[in-house]
Amino acid sequence: MLIVMRDHASPEEIQHVVDHLHASGAETHLSQGEVKTVIGVIGERELIYTLDMEGFPGVSEVIRVLKPYKLAGREFQSEDTVVKVGPAAVGGGTFAVIAGPCSVESEEQMLTVAKAVKAAGATMLRGGAYKPRSSPYAFQGMGLDGLKLLREAGDASGLPVVTEVLDVRDAETVAEWADVLQVGARNMQNFMMLEELGRMRKPVLLKRGLSATIEEVLSSAEYILKGGNRDVILCERGIRTFETYTRNTLDLAAVAAFKVLTHLPVIVDPSHATGRRDLIAPMSRAAVFAGADGLIIEVHPDPEHALCDGPQSLDIPSFEKLSASLTPLVEFEGKRR
Amino acid sequence: MLIVMRDHASPEEIQHVVDHLHASGAETHLSQGEVKTVIGVIGERELIYTLDMEGFPGVSEVIRVLKPYKLAGREFQSEDTVVKVGPAAVGGGTFAVIAGPCSVESEEQMLTVAKAVKAAGATMLRGGAYKPRSSPYAFQGMGLDGLKLLREAGDASGLPVVTEVLDVRDAETVAEWADVLQVGARNMQNFMMLEELGRMRKPVLLKRGLSATIEEVLSSAEYILKGGNRDVILCERGIRTFETYTRNTLDLAAVAAFKVLTHLPVIVDPSHATGRRDLIAPMSRAAVFAGADGLIIEVHPDPEHALCDGPQSLDIPSFEKLSASLTPLVEFEGKRR
Amino acid sequence: MLIVMRDHASPEEIQHVVDHLHASGAETHLSQGEVKTVIGVIGERELIYTLDMEGFPGVSEVIRVLKPYKLAGREFQSEDTVVKVGPAAVGGGTFAVIAGPCSVESEEQMLTVAKAVKAAGATMLRGGAYKPRSSPYAFQGMGLDGLKLLREAGDASGLPVVTEVLDVRDAETVAEWADVLQVGARNMQNFMMLEELGRMRKPVLLKRGLSATIEEVLSSAEYILKGGNRDVILCERGIRTFETYTRNTLDLAAVAAFKVLTHLPVIVDPSHATGRRDLIAPMSRAAVFAGADGLIIEVHPDPEHALCDGPQSLDIPSFEKLSASLTPLVEFEGKRR
Amino acid sequence: MLIVMRDHASPEEIQHVVDHLHASGAETHLSQGEVKTVIGVIGERELIYTLDMEGFPGVSEVIRVLKPYKLAGREFQSEDTVVKVGPAAVGGGTFAVIAGPCSVESEEQMLTVAKAVKAAGATMLRGGAYKPRSSPYAFQGMGLDGLKLLREAGDASGLPVVTEVLDVRDAETVAEWADVLQVGARNMQNFMMLEELGRMRKPVLLKRGLSATIEEVLSSAEYILKGGNRDVILCERGIRTFETYTRNTLDLAAVAAFKVLTHLPVIVDPSHATGRRDLIAPMSRAAVFAGADGLIIEVHPDPEHALCDGPQSLDIPSFEKLSASLTPLVEFEGKRR
Repeated sequence: MLIVMRDHASPEEIQHVVDHLHASGAETHLSQGEVKTVIGVIGERELIYTLDMEGFPGVSEVIRVLKPYKLAGREFQSEDTVVKVGPAAVGGGTFAVIAGPCSVESEEQMLTVAKAVKAAGATMLRGGAYKPRSSPYAFQGMGLDGLKLLREAGDASGLPVVTEVLDVRDAETVAEWADVLQVGARNMQNFMMLEELGRMRKPVLLKRGLSATIEEVLSSAEYILKGGNRDVILCERGIRTFETYTRNTLDLAAVAAFKVLTHLPVIVDPSHATGRRDLIAPMSRAAVFAGADGLIIEVHPDPEHALCDGPQSLDIPSFEKLSASLTPLVEFEGKRR
Repeated sequence: MLIVMRDHASPEEIQHVVDHLHASGAETHLSQGEVKTVIGVIGERELIYTLDMEGFPGVSEVIRVLKPYKLAGREFQSEDTVVKVGPAAVGGGTFAVIAGPCSVESEEQMLTVAKAVKAAGATMLRGGAYKPRSSPYAFQGMGLDGLKLLREAGDASGLPVVTEVLDVRDAETVAEWADVLQVGARNMQNFMMLEELGRMRKPVLLKRGLSATIEEVLSSAEYILKGGNRDVILCERGIRTFETYTRNTLDLAAVAAFKVLTHLPVIVDPSHATGRRDLIAPMSRAAVFAGADGLIIEVHPDPEHALCDGPQSLDIPSFEKLSASLTPLVEFEGKRR
Repeated sequence: MLIVMRDHASPEEIQHVVDHLHASGAETHLSQGEVKTVIGVIGERELIYTLDMEGFPGVSEVIRVLKPYKLAGREFQSEDTVVKVGPAAVGGGTFAVIAGPCSVESEEQMLTVAKAVKAAGATMLRGGAYKPRSSPYAFQGMGLDGLKLLREAGDASGLPVVTEVLDVRDAETVAEWADVLQVGARNMQNFMMLEELGRMRKPVLLKRGLSATIEEVLSSAEYILKGGNRDVILCERGIRTFETYTRNTLDLAAVAAFKVLTHLPVIVDPSHATGRRDLIAPMSRAAVFAGADGLIIEVHPDPEHALCDGPQSLDIPSFEKLSASLTPLVEFEGKRR
Repeated sequence: MLIVMRDHASPEEIQHVVDHLHASGAETHLSQGEVKTVIGVIGERELIYTLDMEGFPGVSEVIRVLKPYKLAGREFQSEDTVVKVGPAAVGGGTFAVIAGPCSVESEEQMLTVAKAVKAAGATMLRGGAYKPRSSPYAFQGMGLDGLKLLREAGDASGLPVVTEVLDVRDAETVAEWADVLQVGARNMQNFMMLEELGRMRKPVLLKRGLSATIEEVLSSAEYILKGGNRDVILCERGIRTFETYTRNTLDLAAVAAFKVLTHLPVIVDPSHATGRRDLIAPMSRAAVFAGADGLIIEVHPDPEHALCDGPQSLDIPSFEKLSASLTPLVEFEGKRR
């Protein structure tokens, strides 16, 4: 941590800051120019992140050089984390394709889509049982019945299943039925849920929040890792900007940045990111070269009758076509499906 | 709802949309130009918000004219809601001043600040027992002990107390000790928590999310209202933009907009919005004229030793000065403290 | 400037950076911790801002402590700049009210509005002769004819006139007819125009760009000041965010921030910021307490027939009412109209 | 255009709107529900975009179905525009690679880089002679001398040259020396410059503004096309968001969207978009699959001594490696270099 003092800060102000730091257990290193003084602060992350020095008299700026996360960083672990989910895996050279409908609607829908996406090369099945909806008047999902249908379709097709935990109180129940627990964008900073999932031993799919920075995503991952659960998959799904043509703005540079900063696998959700069916294929293909370790794509046997997110769902033939086109790209990048 | 068909949509596509709408129970009204056809859809909000027509062949755009909320709207209730909290009130001409530290740290801190802000004209006491922090290494709050200290300070000073519910599982416990339950910005779309608070009968202070639109804030309020809890206070606390000089961008026009759109009281949090002590007074004063029904301000007896948010906390003399300056402004606006 | 080296940067890398800085004429000050080395760099602003050190091997981060502007800063001039425009003034305790239509449309329109706003207390007249429009198919303004009508209306009412310079080649012509030269939001970083206006001796009204930071606004002002033109008025007119209810997001905290950072007067444009007639009065009143030195408001004798920006224009009675309500507020803030 | 009237708008208000539309030359089509009335408006784009109906009494919302551009749209021209620049081309299956330094600095620098990028497969040479810089204290470019050095290096290497027009008054001069005229992000809505370039007969490279929507980019292109200059190349170079890890947020979905909406070629600038050398290669490769027709990449023979943008410049070996890796990807997409 660097503390930049105001121009011509008094010796008393500087001493006061230094004394407080020493009393807190940190070491300091002073750099005094003619008008500017900068205080370098050395200490453990746990200590540094509990020091709030911005309010001290004479302090102009506090710059945290130490990142707010540790276990998630490449410095802590240089080799890629591979998250294994039954027969499937994500990361470390294995490219995952997770496909399925926005929401679980019926047994027939789930069995149809599960078998079709499996045949087309998907490695996991997605489907929402609890749906986060801005309006309380919109369809909220089938709940436990949905979980059971999802499980059944996963078993029938041999695909592990991914679904969202919307309420921390349901985490145990969801974990009974699902193989991967998804944290939605709106819950990315629901820290109590992150801690709960950190105590569990099921892989977590952590979606980037609508206005979360790259660093905040990694800090949220850190909550889970710190609890002892090392199976965290990050998911870039678009951020909120002024652009309205697309539902969100897909930040593929964040994927490349994650691959530099963290050992955790990173997948991309082109469906929610764009909200437009015709942009899913190009964004899926681009994601491969941004360094993604996989994709999560909404597929519905009959998108126009989908109970949610119809406009961004692929039908089965479109998914088959997209999936086939991905294989050579994935191989070109030196990965395997 | 208006459904704009693509240019030269086929008669079959149009009929298909109309048939689906009728089958769902909606009425339609066709407006056919030479190249464009627009289908007006009439039905209950509950119905309209479960219709996802964007995915139908030939559909270009779906425009929802009906708002995603109802109980929160001025159309539903034109007179201002007044939320009463013990001796205090917010809305309907009563301007509330909620003050206190970011986090509860000790008995002495709480008693000092409570008495001081009460003497300076505050009508409620704030203080965080459970703190949402981006990094798991930052101070997380005192928990239940903090709740008790907050309650004690409230009782000692005669001020009702406001504190955040960070975990839905703690809602009952927090409700035992606090008078107003705060939903933080990061939980504004934690719909399960909103539903839980809707079932309770304690006033809720709902903070705007970092990237939430005005309409989404009202939709989140609707979740609480729909559960039967009519005591919802909205709080504008800044949104996330590209500007970095301030911590967030305070959107005072949203306050004026809320006063047009909803009967619920609206308060402003200049501390979190700006993150800068010297901007709190001007923004507090500006908020009065934007139409705010109150303020929530961070006050700490010793900001430089605060365990969180020191740089944005006022010390007691600064709060006294600000509070005194507000009274004539509030009266000028035809309100009372 | 602080240069933070990567963890465990080699002595050669550090020396290489230091050598380059010395060769460029800067002084350095080394602060070496066990893992981190920070190099403080001291030199003139002109020098510091031509040093691009981010690309050097071993460099992790470059932090510019020195601001990119000088003449615009409070450090350079602590007392408020007062911009005088004929009988009117902005800044230093004088609150300016600039009113008039979005675009000049006819002699009658301009004479009507000029006399009305003058009678209601406006101190300057605005009106666009050259209009920046996103679409080439929208009304582009009356050009030179518009300038003449604006001048005529100003003379007839005794109000100095403000109008936009859309094309740097028209700057001289506009300066012949107008008293204040406006730089629109879309030209805030048209540096060649800023330099041209810096060479002129007419006051400049510099509007904040849609995605310009506070620091960038001051850097753009610096271009004008550096040319020798000291009469610069800043204008906050809303920034572009994800919110769509308002046309832009009015950043009143930026106004308070500008009053801390710069001696230049700052006015607010609530019309373009909100794009909604019913939000203009509350935002105008709030602006007074954010510290604004004035307002620029769109007023049209017949808003529904305005050739541009009708929805955000006040009619004359509404402006009269608003203007009257501002006087006591301005006086309350210790300023005069 | 659709005009949605307020609930229970009076028959007089509706008639008033209709009368005004008819008087303006538009046709109308009324759709009256029990509470809502919607007025469809039919007319030429030139007419529709001069109608500002938002201000009329009783009007709730105005929805423009007609796009604000025409010549730029796929409806106007379905086949891809191919922009030819001497021996090079962009669009219609030809993938262009434009490379060179941020700014022209010396004859040696330019000759070195020109020959190197040519040998590595670049099809055009870039280099800034006039540099837009936020601070007036930063390096502003070599001006005319820079133009000449750029031309010389282009001739020596056989590469057409691309450079920015910073001042509309220099457009003719720049056109004398350069083959493609670049409009920088900060000038994307400098409409007078767009009109001037529309009158010229040199290809224009139009960069997306920092806060410009997809529709606004196309509207700016329309200004140029409307003047008769059909050789417009669009460039996605990142938008401004809250994320600070990258310099801007590269919006690759916008590239895919442009390919749907317009026949104009679209290239990507990964250097300015990310501002980080290590993200350039993955974003370049991803751009190919987003549908880009080319790339513009900053290459400097000695990035650490670059006078601007060093941290985002590739050195020559890195560019060679990247360029070689692109060829099979371009071919995979069915295009040629």
